Amino acid sequence: MNRIVIFLLILFAAGLAYSQEVQSLTSYVDPFIGTKGEGHTFPGTSVPFGMVKLGPDCGDKRSNSGYIPDAEIHGFSHTHVSGTGGGAKYGNILVMPFTGKVTPGTISSKPNNYKASPAYFAVDLDRYKIKAELTSSHSVGFHKYTFNENSDKGILIDSGSFLGAGHCCGEAQELIGSETRVVSDTRIEGYSRVRGGWNKGGEYTVFFVALFDTPADTYGTWKNDEIETGSKMAHDSGDKTGAYFFFNNKTDKIINVKVGISFISTGKAYENITKETKGWDFEEVHQTAVNKWNDALNTIKIESANDDLKKVFYTAMYHTMLMPANRTGENPKWNSGEPHYDDFYAIWDTYRATNPLLALIQPKREADIVRSLIDIYNYEGYMPDSRSGNHTGRTQGGSNCDMVIAEAYLKGLKGIDFEKGYEAMIKNAEIPPGDNQQKEGRGGINEYIELGYVPAEYEPDSGAPDLHIPKLYARAGTRTLEYAANDWAIALVAQGMGKSEDYLKYKKRASNWSNLWNTNIETEGVSGFIWPKTKKGQWVEDYSVNKGGSWSNFFYEANSWEYSFYVPQDVQSLIDRCGGNDSFISRLDTFFKNQHFNVNNEPSFFTPCLYTYAGRQDKTNVTIRNIIKGGYTAEQNGIPGNDDAGSMSAWVVFNLLGFFPNAGQDIYIITSPHFKQVSIDLDKGKRWEIIAHDLSGENIYINNVMLNGKPLNRAWFRHNEIKEGGKLEFFMSGKPSNSWEIKPPPSIVDYE
Amino acid sequence: MNRIVIFLLILFAAGLAYSQEVQSLTSYVDPFIGTKGEGHTFPGTSVPFGMVKLGPDCGDKRSNSGYIPDAEIHGFSHTHVSGTGGGAKYGNILVMPFTGKVTPGTISSKPNNYKASPAYFAVDLDRYKIKAELTSSHSVGFHKYTFNENSDKGILIDSGSFLGAGHCCGEAQELIGSETRVVSDTRIEGYSRVRGGWNKGGEYTVFFVALFDTPADTYGTWKNDEIETGSKMAHDSGDKTGAYFFFNNKTDKIINVKVGISFISTGKAYENITKETKGWDFEEVHQTAVNKWNDALNTIKIESANDDLKKVFYTAMYHTMLMPANRTGENPKWNSGEPHYDDFYAIWDTYRATNPLLALIQPKREADIVRSLIDIYNYEGYMPDSRSGNHTGRTQGGSNCDMVIAEAYLKGLKGIDFEKGYEAMIKNAEIPPGDNQQKEGRGGINEYIELGYVPAEYEPDSGAPDLHIPKLYARAGTRTLEYAANDWAIALVAQGMGKSEDYLKYKKRASNWSNLWNTNIETEGVSGFIWPKTKKGQWVEDYSVNKGGSWSNFFYEANSWEYSFYVPQDVQSLIDRCGGNDSFISRLDTFFKNQHFNVNNEPSFFTPCLYTYAGRQDKTNVTIRNIIKGGYTAEQNGIPGNDDAGSMSAWVVFNLLGFFPNAGQDIYIITSPHFKQVSIDLDKGKRWEIIAHDLSGENIYINNVMLNGKPLNRAWFRHNEIKEGGKLEFFMSGKPSNSWEIKPPPSIVDYE
Repeated sequence: MNRIVIFLLILFAAGLAYSQEVQSLTSYVDPFIGTKGEGHTFPGTSVPFGMVKLGPDCGDKRSNSGYIPDAEIHGFSHTHVSGTGGGAKYGNILVMPFTGKVTPGTISSKPNNYKASPAYFAVDLDRYKIKAELTSSHSVGFHKYTFNENSDKGILIDSGSFLGAGHCCGEAQELIGSETRVVSDTRIEGYSRVRGGWNKGGEYTVFFVALFDTPADTYGTWKNDEIETGSKMAHDSGDKTGAYFFFNNKTDKIINVKVGISFISTGKAYENITKETKGWDFEEVHQTAVNKWNDALNTIKIESANDDLKKVFYTAMYHTMLMPANRTGENPKWNSGEPHYDDFYAIWDTYRATNPLLALIQPKREADIVRSLIDIYNYEGYMPDSRSGNHTGRTQGGSNCDMVIAEAYLKGLKGIDFEKGYEAMIKNAEIPPGDNQQKEGRGGINEYIELGYVPAEYEPDSGAPDLHIPKLYARAGTRTLEYAANDWAIALVAQGMGKSEDYLKYKKRASNWSNLWNTNIETEGVSGFIWPKTKKGQWVEDYSVNKGGSWSNFFYEANSWEYSFYVPQDVQSLIDRCGGNDSFISRLDTFFKNQHFNVNNEPSFFTPCLYTYAGRQDKTNVTIRNIIKGGYTAEQNGIPGNDDAGSMSAWVVFNLLGFFPNAGQDIYIITSPHFKQVSIDLDKGKRWEIIAHDLSGENIYINNVMLNGKPLNRAWFRHNEIKEGGKLEFFMSGKPSNSWEIKPPPSIVDYE
Repeated sequence: MNRIVIFLLILFAAGLAYSQEVQSLTSYVDPFIGTKGEGHTFPGTSVPFGMVKLGPDCGDKRSNSGYIPDAEIHGFSHTHVSGTGGGAKYGNILVMPFTGKVTPGTISSKPNNYKASPAYFAVDLDRYKIKAELTSSHSVGFHKYTFNENSDKGILIDSGSFLGAGHCCGEAQELIGSETRVVSDTRIEGYSRVRGGWNKGGEYTVFFVALFDTPADTYGTWKNDEIETGSKMAHDSGDKTGAYFFFNNKTDKIINVKVGISFISTGKAYENITKETKGWDFEEVHQTAVNKWNDALNTIKIESANDDLKKVFYTAMYHTMLMPANRTGENPKWNSGEPHYDDFYAIWDTYRATNPLLALIQPKREADIVRSLIDIYNYEGYMPDSRSGNHTGRTQGGSNCDMVIAEAYLKGLKGIDFEKGYEAMIKNAEIPPGDNQQKEGRGGINEYIELGYVPAEYEPDSGAPDLHIPKLYARAGTRTLEYAANDWAIALVAQGMGKSEDYLKYKKRASNWSNLWNTNIETEGVSGFIWPKTKKGQWVEDYSVNKGGSWSNFFYEANSWEYSFYVPQDVQSLIDRCGGNDSFISRLDTFFKNQHFNVNNEPSFFTPCLYTYAGRQDKTNVTIRNIIKGGYTAEQNGIPGNDDAGSMSAWVVFNLLGFFPNAGQDIYIITSPHFKQVSIDLDKGKRWEIIAHDLSGENIYINNVMLNGKPLNRAWFRHNEIKEGGKLEFFMSGKPSNSWEIKPPPSIVDYE
């Protein structure tokens, strides 16, 4: 046995040992990353995909996550989202400890000494000299309040509190009503019923039961800040209600409260408490939650000497598992026995990297999510693009659930009724949602089918009467491009199912993006751009390449520079239209150099990978390294834009590992390995090792790749090639390779 | 003073005395009328527009009203509708007294000795020798159970019971979940959450609190028929739950139960009880309800020696006030402060006579109903055609809310935001509901706007992929005709509001019915029929005049014979197309003689009035008399078809009085006076007297009419002419008049 073999055996054995043990990876998670700047992440306590997200509601109660650094805290509520924009959602069932008199409307305190780690959040409430510590199980918030020994101890429940009141544009949450009942000296229960928020959703009801470890000495209820001492009931009259307990016993410094919530009933909320927690051991509940996080994070083990990079990586992974919320058993709208998830916020964001990540490391979870989307179709007629608080809405661009279904199908996820899923995709592709196009399906689909694009007329005006009816068919450019990508997702499933007529039909439609390709536009040395076209086929004259995107514009959240690259299904045709590889690379260079790229715009998530289609994997690699270096840090402002329910985070997770998915397909593009050694737990204990030989600060280029010991003559691979585990090896060096990388990733033209 | 003057004065004084006193008119109401045959009326206890409709659920629990004559009774539930078809709705929160062992699944008893009057229902439960008596307030059911003295007394609450399980065609109700809690030995509370039913509605939750006048000695809960003795809680796990009380005290024969319901919460249900009922006096609650009915019925006082006819009349009036249900303060979906009504079932039925009747005798109530429709538009985007259990659906034909709004506007109802109402009408007329066209707006509106009709292609098939997606655009003929009528309703409001451009636009569209008039069709000596036309403008060949209507056919619930008369806005043009008055009268004669007319098909409600447009009021009169004689009796099968939420009943109320509304306008056609003297209380104590001089079994023809002492040279009048009260006099004789009736009722051509 020569030395090399011995060395490899040692390495292999070490790798095994390193892989099998459950590491304490939660120490690399800092929930405050992304809470400053534009990340909008939620720093409170949750388990993976938890229903309870317990954290502080601060300041003007307009923050999407509830949290505002250093702002006054009104209390700790149990429902939140992470990384969202627009009108805030949730913030239900707020609990606040206090001393002295009970003053529901003016109870807030300045915070001090914030601390957070997975499933743990702590802060000192300066005004009352109370230390608040929070942890949680899936449906239960556990509050531990340590009072100043000599104080009068009070705990208030604000049943009707919520975030986002007064937000503009129809996106404000509104209280419908609330109810609070003092059941005993250790139990308060009730509910809050709220509507609205960013997704303009209908009503949802959060029921709760609060159990106290210490019997109250006195109590009361309140309605609209008016106190009724000794009252046990504040019934629902469409107002804010609440209750409070006072504890006169001066010896107990600590009061613990467990608040179970449910979207079904108070009975279910109580049952959630009894099922998920025993007794009053805060640390036990906390440790159980930490274990869940460690199990989830241990699906990917990395070797890195750079602790900050590990923090970036594991915190990003953590952020991809806060949403959607697992609400199985908590659906008040139907009873199908299927898994139920909520807070898709939005799939337009998450289909690009988050869903692919789950399909890789949590295939059972992703299958459950897909089943819940199909179940929503089955009961409500369309799969959602966004959904929150039991209501679908709003549709940002295409019907990108199609991408999620297609990917699940192509990657072989189990237990999904794909025939039904295909039906749901076809519904999107064929049946107009009419006035509900802000909410479901594909707006302008009739025109898209007839013309091959969504025409410009629909953008500025709908032809609707001069009334405050929402403008229709906005985002015509985004829609056209995404519909074409969605059509390719349908085509791939049709092909797999042997539906050859459908396959050819949707394959054809997948080229529809090119109907909006205007060769006449030239700027910064680049020519050809996606451009608004009228119903009669004329290009719109009054338009600009740099015109920003918005809800009611031709593009959403991006401009034509960015969207003119959004053809993930048909990159080869795009390259051809741009004049071939060299010209295309030059266009990409201009795009990045002149700062038209913005990683926090999801439509550009895949753009760095396009270099690889033109034979320049090295440029993909370097571009991504620069994006990561420039935007992602272990600081509180360390996410370069709105995390969008973990989308920014999933982007960096993949690219740090060294590959990135072409969403809606079964293809990964090799990007920028950042770790010398990675071990990924795939389904059922299958292990996939990724080694970056000779990786260093200088050796950032990939010179060769081996997959399961065989040379890989391409800078991409299919899911099927890694799903049984095995080994992917990158051989790094200080210079781009001359030899590697022969066959470009497949585009439509490569399919029969 | 001559003798005639003295006689008139006496008559006048008598009339005054007769009018002012509140008569006990409930004795003329028999809630069993319509419960046999096809009437589907609800015989249980309710107040006018009551939220609680408490009655028995029988047999296979598939009856729309819950009641099935002589079938086994499972118990008494609190929510029902009256006069409906398709999959049954409601039947929530069922209470059943029993003796012996508790057996939730097999508790039913044979009934005996049914009795019913307004707000009272009684039956003997043979199996248990228990007499059950029921009464109610608006939101509370009052149960009085008289047990056999020596028995073990039990009362069971079945929280999850509902009607219509297993109904076909997606119209079955389905349980989502239920919860039941024993709060004390005199209180049980909980809820039931159900979805589906005829309108294919989403979830609704009925909360309840049951208070008992006698403390229970033992108790328990159950889930899916499994008993848990001594348990106080059966939480929601998606199953049927319930509870029971046993009363061992042998001396009390009677046990009273009050069950408050709410669509908001158990707290609100309890509050409903405390607000609406004091103590345990069954008779007091009953009498309060009877007084409400008498107040409602006394708005129309009639003089007739024919007690059966009085029964027919007042029972019909009673049936027009069971629905919609007043749910003001009980809307769980938003909190707007507007009145809230539910169970529009369907406006397609009720706009023709029921809403006009309310506009006449309960203008405040009708204004509240209209406000609630506009409020629904404001929060959900469209006014409903049908709505039940907090969810809109299904749309039968046109957007007939338009007719209701127009009528309220033209008749000057107060307190309504007509600008918003107009906006809602325009929305119907312009914005396609897409895939929601079974539920909202006007399906096929784009084609209707483009072609002037909804084309035939959409009838047999939608062009949808071969999947179980609902067929679209069915009922193309019904839609076209009703859209044209609806457009006239919009035009009239536009005219009133001075929106002259809109007026002209919708006036033009109101003639669109004629685009489907096929002059080539001839049968039974009649030519010209409404006919399916293709998108390219060709008449469909494979079609028949007698082809019955259905949900997925060209017409709904009627054939071309019937629908070819449905042009209420444009009768003069219809007459012209039919070849003038004589030819039109001959067509009507053929129609009635050859039994193409069916009073239980709402599209024909107005057809007997069409004779009057062609100058033959006498034929209108005689035709209607024959319809009433042939179909309406004081027997249990005395309604000639499905009462359709009181629509059949409203038809006969108007026609017995002697006039009938052209719905959506402000016009009444004089029809067939059946009473010598009528006194109608209009708004704010204004009294309108109707005298039929010399009316008798022979003297059925109207020879002359006086309105407020002046000759009326037409067989119709406007609402404005009677809304301040006054006197309408018919001078009857044994022969049709030669002199009376000059000017026909107005049609579109009579408007500038």
